[in-house]
Amino acid sequence: MRLSGIGELSLLDKIRKRFSAKIAGGRATVGIGDDAAVISPRGDLALTTDMMVEGVHFDLSYITPFQLGFKLVSVNVSDIYAMGGSPSYALLALALPPGTEEAFLDGLLDGVAAALRLYRARLVGGDLSSSPVMTLSATLIGRVSRSVKRGGARPGDFIYVTGPLGDSAMGLHLLKTIGKPVDLKKPVNKPFKWALLRPLLERHLQPVARNPKGFKRHATAMIDISDGLSIDLVRLCMEGRVGARIYEEKIPISFEMKTAAGYLGLDPLALALKGGEDYELLFTSPKKLSGAVCIGEVAKSGLMLVDRRGGHRPIRPEGYRHFEV
Amino acid sequence: MRLSGIGELSLLDKIRKRFSAKIAGGRATVGIGDDAAVISPRGDLALTTDMMVEGVHFDLSYITPFQLGFKLVSVNVSDIYAMGGSPSYALLALALPPGTEEAFLDGLLDGVAAALRLYRARLVGGDLSSSPVMTLSATLIGRVSRSVKRGGARPGDFIYVTGPLGDSAMGLHLLKTIGKPVDLKKPVNKPFKWALLRPLLERHLQPVARNPKGFKRHATAMIDISDGLSIDLVRLCMEGRVGARIYEEKIPISFEMKTAAGYLGLDPLALALKGGEDYELLFTSPKKLSGAVCIGEVAKSGLMLVDRRGGHRPIRPEGYRHFEV
Repeated sequence: MRLSGIGELSLLDKIRKRFSAKIAGGRATVGIGDDAAVISPRGDLALTTDMMVEGVHFDLSYITPFQLGFKLVSVNVSDIYAMGGSPSYALLALALPPGTEEAFLDGLLDGVAAALRLYRARLVGGDLSSSPVMTLSATLIGRVSRSVKRGGARPGDFIYVTGPLGDSAMGLHLLKTIGKPVDLKKPVNKPFKWALLRPLLERHLQPVARNPKGFKRHATAMIDISDGLSIDLVRLCMEGRVGARIYEEKIPISFEMKTAAGYLGLDPLALALKGGEDYELLFTSPKKLSGAVCIGEVAKSGLMLVDRRGGHRPIRPEGYRHFEV
Repeated sequence: MRLSGIGELSLLDKIRKRFSAKIAGGRATVGIGDDAAVISPRGDLALTTDMMVEGVHFDLSYITPFQLGFKLVSVNVSDIYAMGGSPSYALLALALPPGTEEAFLDGLLDGVAAALRLYRARLVGGDLSSSPVMTLSATLIGRVSRSVKRGGARPGDFIYVTGPLGDSAMGLHLLKTIGKPVDLKKPVNKPFKWALLRPLLERHLQPVARNPKGFKRHATAMIDISDGLSIDLVRLCMEGRVGARIYEEKIPISFEMKTAAGYLGLDPLALALKGGEDYELLFTSPKKLSGAVCIGEVAKSGLMLVDRRGGHRPIRPEGYRHFEV
């Protein structure tokens, strides 16, 4: 059955039933299906919106509808986390080609629901439209008691990342080699064995946003790494009017990524610096912290990458940008 | 200069400056440019998201960038108003073709800013992406002290609309005849004189959402007419599990629309019933109210249109739907 075969009213009904009250994470007095949702927040709220466009952010040749829905939520939750908040409510705006299969929409909503369950947030509203190009937009609303801005880094602070970088970029590279969507529950053993492939593919297809709960009270500045370490570090430094010095050998690179890069003749450091969509958090703190990897320190000015032999080279904002020269 | 010639960082900077703090309507502690905006709301909030897709919701052959930006805000504010709320904060997600002219973006943002100023709301964040098809999505957040849901109509309530219907549909019809965008400040006198044309064109190109301030405390149910009176009345009745009887001769039709319809050989009643995008409010109330037009009354069941001779015919949910059979 195709979407063109179901009226929008019944489609909305379906979505409403799918998301009715069974997802925890907040109190909404009016939900899906009315002109607007109504919530009763306590305290400050963090708001963010992020969209994904077919052919720009995703390619349906490589991603399943479930993964797409899951990722749409994750990329938005990542922004809430990066602000020091906790996700509570979500709104979806889906523009789908008229011929979209109902099974596709079901998969997409399953992915959205799974992610919302994981992050303890609740879908409260949205919009549904047709479009020649699939465009998925979400707005996430979270509670925040102490916001951690991008601009709060101070010279002398340590610079941390929450996990290995470049895995997502490598995952995309591998997906292009595989050439079709991969169900993460069904092992594929090409071009590498599944134990090596799976974490890299998962990081790209179904990323889980990092919850900064354990350290956010110590963070002076924070941003999520969506466009690549170098560009997001530049953003953090520009906002705080500071510089940074990071050390090549401290940048966390997973065993899986390094192995795959070696096999494919790719530079793991370049992937870690420029590869986007890892959704790890990049933050600064004056404290020595465990549970995150220290990759350098905030300086008064200058953005430098220090190599293994002590050589310095400037960091340029390289990574994915939509309107680049 | 084209968008591809400006980096995303500087583009964001431009938007941030454009919208920095000069628009009234709320308090935001963190605004555009961070991972998420942070607001300090008092009381309940209404949330809504609505998107506009090129070729589906708008055609750049007929609308200026300013009008498009203005309309994007209006359609979202209309949902907040229809919930009984007042707009406070906005988030934008813009997906623009890579070759978009900077002047286009400026015009679009001018329109967004003008509308936000009118509604006393403030842009606090957003997302910017490239896309082969221009897709504009906005999320509006408003305060609400007493929400007016779609489902609260009771048999015996009067049914009201806030203004003439079908003007927007007629405006679109005329625009297709004119065949190019119309600057509402520069009179065009074809196919009719400007005094007749302007209100119809404006209603389509640059609609102003209706503020229900004067009567919302008396409303039992409310919805904005975005897809046409008949489909939105069906929605209201379905939600409330009630019926309705509306009277043909009571449906407000403007002098301009009636005149243009007569000239073009179109049926004004059909345009009023099925034409979408008027963004008038449709509401029910047990009270006799002035300032809105009573078009009928809520019944226990059945949806009937009563004609001038007292004949009854059923109302079908006709109007614009994205996923129709």
